Amino acid sequence: MKRYEVLADEVAESIAQGRIRPGERLSSVRETCRSRGVSPSTVFQAYYLLEARGLIEARPRSGYFVSRAMAKHVEPEPSAPAAAGRPVEISELVFQVLGHAKNRALVPMGSAFPSPGLFPLPKLALSMGKAMRRLDPWQTVEDLSPGSAELRRQIAMRYLPMGCGVDADELVITNGAMEALNLCLEVVTEPGDLVAVESPTFYAALQALERRKLRAVEVATHPRTGIDVNALAAVMAEHPVKACWLMPNFQNPLGSLMPDASKQALVELLAKHQVPLIEDDVYGELYFGPSRPRPAKAWDRSGLVMHCSSFSKTLAPGYRVGWAAAGRFTAEVAKRKLMSSLAAPVPSQEGLSEYLRHGGYDRHLRQLRGLLAQQQQQVLRGIAKHFPAGTKVTSPEGGYFAWVELPPSVNALELHRLALSQAVSVAPGQLFSAGQGFTHHMRVNFGHPDHEDFESALRTVGSIAKALA
Amino acid sequence: MKRYEVLADEVAESIAQGRIRPGERLSSVRETCRSRGVSPSTVFQAYYLLEARGLIEARPRSGYFVSRAMAKHVEPEPSAPAAAGRPVEISELVFQVLGHAKNRALVPMGSAFPSPGLFPLPKLALSMGKAMRRLDPWQTVEDLSPGSAELRRQIAMRYLPMGCGVDADELVITNGAMEALNLCLEVVTEPGDLVAVESPTFYAALQALERRKLRAVEVATHPRTGIDVNALAAVMAEHPVKACWLMPNFQNPLGSLMPDASKQALVELLAKHQVPLIEDDVYGELYFGPSRPRPAKAWDRSGLVMHCSSFSKTLAPGYRVGWAAAGRFTAEVAKRKLMSSLAAPVPSQEGLSEYLRHGGYDRHLRQLRGLLAQQQQQVLRGIAKHFPAGTKVTSPEGGYFAWVELPPSVNALELHRLALSQAVSVAPGQLFSAGQGFTHHMRVNFGHPDHEDFESALRTVGSIAKALA
Repeated sequence: MKRYEVLADEVAESIAQGRIRPGERLSSVRETCRSRGVSPSTVFQAYYLLEARGLIEARPRSGYFVSRAMAKHVEPEPSAPAAAGRPVEISELVFQVLGHAKNRALVPMGSAFPSPGLFPLPKLALSMGKAMRRLDPWQTVEDLSPGSAELRRQIAMRYLPMGCGVDADELVITNGAMEALNLCLEVVTEPGDLVAVESPTFYAALQALERRKLRAVEVATHPRTGIDVNALAAVMAEHPVKACWLMPNFQNPLGSLMPDASKQALVELLAKHQVPLIEDDVYGELYFGPSRPRPAKAWDRSGLVMHCSSFSKTLAPGYRVGWAAAGRFTAEVAKRKLMSSLAAPVPSQEGLSEYLRHGGYDRHLRQLRGLLAQQQQQVLRGIAKHFPAGTKVTSPEGGYFAWVELPPSVNALELHRLALSQAVSVAPGQLFSAGQGFTHHMRVNFGHPDHEDFESALRTVGSIAKALA
Repeated sequence: MKRYEVLADEVAESIAQGRIRPGERLSSVRETCRSRGVSPSTVFQAYYLLEARGLIEARPRSGYFVSRAMAKHVEPEPSAPAAAGRPVEISELVFQVLGHAKNRALVPMGSAFPSPGLFPLPKLALSMGKAMRRLDPWQTVEDLSPGSAELRRQIAMRYLPMGCGVDADELVITNGAMEALNLCLEVVTEPGDLVAVESPTFYAALQALERRKLRAVEVATHPRTGIDVNALAAVMAEHPVKACWLMPNFQNPLGSLMPDASKQALVELLAKHQVPLIEDDVYGELYFGPSRPRPAKAWDRSGLVMHCSSFSKTLAPGYRVGWAAAGRFTAEVAKRKLMSSLAAPVPSQEGLSEYLRHGGYDRHLRQLRGLLAQQQQQVLRGIAKHFPAGTKVTSPEGGYFAWVELPPSVNALELHRLALSQAVSVAPGQLFSAGQGFTHHMRVNFGHPDHEDFESALRTVGSIAKALA
């Protein structure tokens, strides 16, 4: 753990235990440097992180204060699923609930996508137009799987500053991360096998398991730090887990971020058992803290981590360009890609290559992260204001999802139905578990800072929740 | 069968039996109208068809003559596979052999793709640039599966003149036809099931079966008229066939075209057994005859035909836009598409919508068909000239593949290896059967009219084949 993270955690602890109260001023950067013997930049990074978590807020010329809104936020309980494998039958519910994603008239609180208005689509269109007008026709053959050499080079370069070596030759370009994840799963499992997932977990992972007739074993998570590696170790000691499908960075739906030490412990545990990790890292670039959290792959020494990501959540929704860096399974994944859909789209690959060479991706990301962090604060304030007493919510350090635990008497499916009748989509907790256990939980999407009705939608959903509570 | 087809078959029969000899003049259109009591347009259509088949040739101001080159072409034998289901293990061989597709230095005689130089890529780039610059960001959500409503409307419209009703709502846009075919297969089979395919069949179908642990039963085909429906009926009477994966129009690798009556009989047979047909129609638009051959789907009354196609072979290679019109299975296919890769690429979908609205697709197709028909003649002449005595070859009425039967002593894998050392790729017959039975056959790609070394490559492969014979 880095020095600023230690400091941030200590301050967070003080706030949680009431030693510093909502509205109170934190000690100044100078004082803290002196009292702790750290550099100003460490203090700034720690305060920045706490601000991102929504625990403190800066007031111009006055310093940092414990957030008043945050005082009301209590973290949801860690999950404690039964450690038993079970077949998955979630798809019908998912399709029923998410069939509303395309309905523009709904406020997309339950959506899986950030607002398409957040992305530099016109600039991408220019890059693509340019790349395609001067395209050597032969490129349509050369971009077949594993994909454009130039694009793979560009992607590999982005892993360097993370301290995570990914070679361009290890990358297989896919039709979005979803295809990458599915292909990885296909390579390392047979029908009937047991796969460990987080509890709660992203419903698309459950659907993928269901589609391949796999069984899920759900593992306890902490709402801030993600999967409990000890709990996973206990599950693996008892069950023949064939693969893990996890999201170490800004997990969907929790928003949790595994600390580096947990990631390392996870990778070591899996290496010990020779079990592959399918790592879904699509939100990794959307961090609010001072630096890009490393993927679990950064600790991989045995080639067991199959790291998957995409540009869909960070740059180019709808372009359908994702990738797998699948370690020792790379050749097998490339073959499955050829067999399942031959290639990723050439225009998208070429357009993104061109944009990444010239386009200011990092500038765009900085802006996007700022918007999302700000919107998270607004949404958390709205929840504090409008939702029933006893509501708990995560305050993630990245991504665009928060996980809300409502009073136990609120049935989230009922909430979903009633909200729908008032033109708000809600993603009920039942979607996020093979056991459909999160009955009074919901995932909130705060990736729509440009949506003018979001605040009133929070009020609407809050009133319904109060009525149901 | 239409009147011109009857007439064409009669003339073909006369040529085959030597009643009219190579170089001899056919009776004039006027004479034929009188003697047969048909209209001039019927005669023209018949002669056009025979020309496309390479049996006759027009000489300006002199009329039609039996082709001299054609005299040497003998059709390969109908196939007679053992009627037994078998597991498929073809993938490794396919990957070994086709790993050379990206090598630009090779003459692509064994390639699966037509020359990328045949397509209006700059015009498509303009359409796409235009569509993407004015894109409503929300479209990135609306184009999620089943895909762009406008594109589906455009595709549905193209089926009308074929006499094949396909509703836009029945269409699911996929990442190329390959994904469509795989999803259809997934919906109607379980591991271990038996699937009927043509003999020889497209290796990607065999790979798809292998990937899903299905068993293949290969059915006899005629090199000109495709699958033998009676043979299929016999197979189905004895074996629990769960689905058929067939290519009625310009089959890969034969180039065969099922007559309408066979298509109808096929659809009726499958309806009787309630067995779905996965119809791969990617070459249907590449006909050399007077009109677009209908897909088997045109006769479907029970919703059992899962028709798949794409723009990859006709307009936009690398764009990865295909579709399934899956009859009663449409909703299931749409769900699988969502689960496997979420959506087809938005830039490709929007670019193609724009091109189809304004772009002269039919003009492009006319030109492309002309080029392919002409190149077929050149390649067939080259084969007649350079290949060993006893070589037989199909003369398809569309597409860009011909199927060559070499003297039985030629091992096609050996031929492939030796040709590779002389910078020519060859697709050996062994790729096209789960039993790897076509040991002295090869598929020839005549979709590279712009390749200057094709003629000399035919000479090279011919010499090797002669040496091996």
